[in-house]
Amino acid sequence: MIVVMKTGATEEQIAGVRKAIKELGFKDHPILGEERSVVAVLGHVYPELVDELGVLDGVDSVVRISKPFKLASREVNPFNTVVRVGGVSIGDGNVVVMGGPCSVDTEENVMITARAVRDAGGHILRGGAFKPRSSPYAFRGHGEKGLKMLAAARDETGLPVITEVMDARDVELVAKYADILQIGARNMQNFALLDEVGKAARPVMLKRGLSGTIEEWLLAAEYILSHGNRDVILCERGIRTFETATRNTFDVSAIPLVKRLSHLPIIGDPSHATGAWYLVEPVALAAIAAGADGLIVEVHPEPDHALSDGAQSLTPENFAKLVERTRTLAQALGRDLAPTGVTGEKARKAS
Amino acid sequence: MIVVMKTGATEEQIAGVRKAIKELGFKDHPILGEERSVVAVLGHVYPELVDELGVLDGVDSVVRISKPFKLASREVNPFNTVVRVGGVSIGDGNVVVMGGPCSVDTEENVMITARAVRDAGGHILRGGAFKPRSSPYAFRGHGEKGLKMLAAARDETGLPVITEVMDARDVELVAKYADILQIGARNMQNFALLDEVGKAARPVMLKRGLSGTIEEWLLAAEYILSHGNRDVILCERGIRTFETATRNTFDVSAIPLVKRLSHLPIIGDPSHATGAWYLVEPVALAAIAAGADGLIVEVHPEPDHALSDGAQSLTPENFAKLVERTRTLAQALGRDLAPTGVTGEKARKAS
Amino acid sequence: MIVVMKTGATEEQIAGVRKAIKELGFKDHPILGEERSVVAVLGHVYPELVDELGVLDGVDSVVRISKPFKLASREVNPFNTVVRVGGVSIGDGNVVVMGGPCSVDTEENVMITARAVRDAGGHILRGGAFKPRSSPYAFRGHGEKGLKMLAAARDETGLPVITEVMDARDVELVAKYADILQIGARNMQNFALLDEVGKAARPVMLKRGLSGTIEEWLLAAEYILSHGNRDVILCERGIRTFETATRNTFDVSAIPLVKRLSHLPIIGDPSHATGAWYLVEPVALAAIAAGADGLIVEVHPEPDHALSDGAQSLTPENFAKLVERTRTLAQALGRDLAPTGVTGEKARKAS
Amino acid sequence: MIVVMKTGATEEQIAGVRKAIKELGFKDHPILGEERSVVAVLGHVYPELVDELGVLDGVDSVVRISKPFKLASREVNPFNTVVRVGGVSIGDGNVVVMGGPCSVDTEENVMITARAVRDAGGHILRGGAFKPRSSPYAFRGHGEKGLKMLAAARDETGLPVITEVMDARDVELVAKYADILQIGARNMQNFALLDEVGKAARPVMLKRGLSGTIEEWLLAAEYILSHGNRDVILCERGIRTFETATRNTFDVSAIPLVKRLSHLPIIGDPSHATGAWYLVEPVALAAIAAGADGLIVEVHPEPDHALSDGAQSLTPENFAKLVERTRTLAQALGRDLAPTGVTGEKARKAS
Repeated sequence: MIVVMKTGATEEQIAGVRKAIKELGFKDHPILGEERSVVAVLGHVYPELVDELGVLDGVDSVVRISKPFKLASREVNPFNTVVRVGGVSIGDGNVVVMGGPCSVDTEENVMITARAVRDAGGHILRGGAFKPRSSPYAFRGHGEKGLKMLAAARDETGLPVITEVMDARDVELVAKYADILQIGARNMQNFALLDEVGKAARPVMLKRGLSGTIEEWLLAAEYILSHGNRDVILCERGIRTFETATRNTFDVSAIPLVKRLSHLPIIGDPSHATGAWYLVEPVALAAIAAGADGLIVEVHPEPDHALSDGAQSLTPENFAKLVERTRTLAQALGRDLAPTGVTGEKARKAS
Repeated sequence: MIVVMKTGATEEQIAGVRKAIKELGFKDHPILGEERSVVAVLGHVYPELVDELGVLDGVDSVVRISKPFKLASREVNPFNTVVRVGGVSIGDGNVVVMGGPCSVDTEENVMITARAVRDAGGHILRGGAFKPRSSPYAFRGHGEKGLKMLAAARDETGLPVITEVMDARDVELVAKYADILQIGARNMQNFALLDEVGKAARPVMLKRGLSGTIEEWLLAAEYILSHGNRDVILCERGIRTFETATRNTFDVSAIPLVKRLSHLPIIGDPSHATGAWYLVEPVALAAIAAGADGLIVEVHPEPDHALSDGAQSLTPENFAKLVERTRTLAQALGRDLAPTGVTGEKARKAS
Repeated sequence: MIVVMKTGATEEQIAGVRKAIKELGFKDHPILGEERSVVAVLGHVYPELVDELGVLDGVDSVVRISKPFKLASREVNPFNTVVRVGGVSIGDGNVVVMGGPCSVDTEENVMITARAVRDAGGHILRGGAFKPRSSPYAFRGHGEKGLKMLAAARDETGLPVITEVMDARDVELVAKYADILQIGARNMQNFALLDEVGKAARPVMLKRGLSGTIEEWLLAAEYILSHGNRDVILCERGIRTFETATRNTFDVSAIPLVKRLSHLPIIGDPSHATGAWYLVEPVALAAIAAGADGLIVEVHPEPDHALSDGAQSLTPENFAKLVERTRTLAQALGRDLAPTGVTGEKARKAS
Repeated sequence: MIVVMKTGATEEQIAGVRKAIKELGFKDHPILGEERSVVAVLGHVYPELVDELGVLDGVDSVVRISKPFKLASREVNPFNTVVRVGGVSIGDGNVVVMGGPCSVDTEENVMITARAVRDAGGHILRGGAFKPRSSPYAFRGHGEKGLKMLAAARDETGLPVITEVMDARDVELVAKYADILQIGARNMQNFALLDEVGKAARPVMLKRGLSGTIEEWLLAAEYILSHGNRDVILCERGIRTFETATRNTFDVSAIPLVKRLSHLPIIGDPSHATGAWYLVEPVALAAIAAGADGLIVEVHPEPDHALSDGAQSLTPENFAKLVERTRTLAQALGRDLAPTGVTGEKARKAS
């Protein structure tokens, strides 16, 4: 950390800053410049120090030079984290595809969709039983009933299930049915919830908040990791910008940057990012080309009768095409579609 | 709601849209234009309909023409909501000032600050016992111990207390000590928490999320109102934009716009919006000039030793000046500083 | 400037950085930390150095610690710049109000509006003869004919005239008729135009770009100042954010921050920032309360027949009320409305 | 266009709106709803009408339902525009790669880079002779001297040249040397410049502004097209958002959306979008996977001695790898790298 003094700061002010640094338990190191002086702070500094030193007399600004995340950082752990669930590996270089309805509506639709996802070569079934909705008057999901429908679909198809948990009190319930717990964008900094899933015995997929910086996102992952749960998957799903032609702006450069800063796997969600089914495939392929470890995509047998987000769901046919295009693309880039967890035996029985 | 057909949509496609509208229980009303045709949807529409109709064949887009919030809307209730707490009225035209430390650190500091807030003419004591922090390694507040310090300060000074609740499981605990429950920016769309405070017997101050639109913010208020809790106060605290010279961008025009759209009181938080103590007074005065019902400001006896957000806290002296400037400004605009809830008797005893 | 080395950078890499710094003509000063090392660069550094040093082997990042603007900076010139035009002083502590139509439509309307601005106590007449329009099919202004209408209105009312120049080739023409040259938001970084108005013998009002940071804005002012034109006025007119409920987001905290960083006067434009006439007064008062040196406001005798931006124009009656409210507010804050440049004699003759 | 009346608007107010619509030369069509009424406006409406009707008594809002761009629109022209320059076709389905230094520094470097671009299989040489710089004190390019260096490199290598023009007065000069005129992000709405390049006999590449919406961008293209120049290429180069970990945010979904809305070719610029050489390849591949017609990439023989933007330039070796990866990716997606304009004969002679 570097304390930058104002132009013309007095020797007394510089001495005051050095004293404060030492009192706080750090080593100080002054550098007297022509225009300005700075004082370096050596030791295991923490982010709050920026404010604590920033208010001292004669200080212009305080500059951080270390990353605030540790367990999520590639500097600390240079080896890719691979999350294994139901026979599927996420983060080992291959591409994993998750598909399913935005919200779980009827048992029949979930089953049809699950079979379609499996038959198309998808790896994991997604679906919302608890749905975050901007308005209290919108459909908020079937709750436990929806979880049971998802579990039934897993039993038949062999596909592991990912579903969102929105309330710290529901973590145990959701973990009973789901294979991966999803933290939605609105809850990226719901710290009570992060603490709770950090203690759960299930992998967690952490979506980036609509206005979450990459640093905040990795710090949110750090919350989960710091409780001992090392199976964290990140998911880029678009950020909020001035552009309204798409629902959000898919931040494709976040993918290679996160791969560089962190060892955690990262998944792209083109459905929520764009909000339009005809943009899903191009943005999905872009995510893979940029290095994503997988995709999560909305699929619905009858998109125009879906209970939510119909306009962004793919039909089973379009989903199958997307999986094929993804495979071709991955292979061209020296990677491949991940093997599904559905073994030949199970797959046969399931059919 | 208006369904806009594509240029060159066929009669068959238009008929399909009309049929779908009727099947969903609404009345349809087509208008055949020169370039395009549109079909109006009449009845009590809901936001999801945009997606449900948007996927039909030949549809270009679906446009909403009603506001999705009801109980929060001035169209529904034209009379200003006035929230009364401990003898203080918020929303009746006068200006209310809340002050106190960002986070509750020591009993002594809380008491010194509370007295300073009262002596300066402040109305309500703020202070954080549960603190949302980006990093799991930062100080997260004293919890119930902090709540007790705040309650002790209220007992001595007569100032009602506002403090943040971050976890639906803590609502009962916080409501035991606090007079107003604060929902922080990161939790604006923590729907489980909104549901819970909607059932609490305490007024709620709902901060705008960093990327919360005004519509989403009023819908979040709608969650609380829909559970029967009508004492909701809104708080503008800056939004996240590309500008990094200030911590956030205080959206001053949100204040008169919210007053026009809603009957709920709105408070300005210049401390968190700007992140710099020397910007607090000008932005506070701007909020009042724009029509805010009050201010919430950070005060700390020794800002350079505060446990968090030191750089944005006012000293007691600067806070007292701010209250005086606020009074002068309010009076010039035909309003006034609200009477404090601290009666002469109580104030004397308290001193 | 501080060069931050990667964790684990080798001695050889540090030596390489030190060598490069010296080759570029600066002094180097290494600090070896526990986690990381940094190398300070001493001397008159320039912004490009960030990139030049950032690519060296073993470097993590390069941090600037000086402001890149000089002539616009309060560190360089601590005294407020006061721009004087036609008897009006801008930047001396008093409040100046500019009013007039968005675009100059008819001679009659310009004259009616100019008289209304003068009679209401306004100081300067604004009006667009050259109009930037998103679409090539929209009305782009009357050009020189419009400039002549503005000059005629000045001759009758005694009000100095401000109008936009959009093309470096038009600077001479516009300067023939106008008293202040306005650079619009879209041209904040039109460097050819900035160079040209920097050589003109007229004050320049520089609007902030829709996505212009405060630093870029002051650097754009630096372009003008560096050609010898010291009469630069800044104008905050809203930035582009995710919020669409108002046309732009008026960045009220930019006002006190600019006053702190720079000695140049700053004006608020609530009309373009909000895009709604009913938000103009509250945001105008907020700008003054935050310390702005003046306002620029759209006025039109018949807002519903204006050729552009009708929805954001005030009627003459509402403009007169705004000037009175502004006067009251300024006086409450120990300031005042500026004296108009229109002397009693001239004002009488003009009537 | 749809005029939405306020809840409870009177019959008289609705009649007033209908009268205004007819006076303005359009047909009106009222729809009386349960909660609200709306009046449709039929005919060739223009964007300004939103404001003109929005101010009428009883009106809540006015909603546009047509796109404001015409010549740039795929509805008007469903066939892809193919821009041909020096034997290279842009927009025919194949992928075109432009490479070269950010700014032209020395004759030798330009020549070395041009040969490297050609040898790697690149199609077009880019390089800045006129450079937009935030600060007036930074290097602003060699001007005509730089143009001559680019022309010399074209003569030797056979690569067509693209370079930026920043001033309407320089269009003729730049067109003398360059094969494609580039309009930079800061000038996307420099309408005087757009008018001028619209009249030039050279293709134009129009970069998206930092805060330019897709609609504004296509309208800026419309300026050029409306002067008769049909050879317009769009270039996505990142937008300005809250995220500061990358220089800008590359809006990858803009690519398929623009392909859907417009017939113009679109190119991706990963160098300026990310500002970091190690993000260039992944984002470049993402752009192609999303459907871009090509790439424009910074290349410099010694990135750490480049006069500007060194940190984002590729070495010739990395550029050659990128071209190969692009070819592989394009072929996997059923496309290919475009044939270069350099014929065997010319290429041999050039070597």
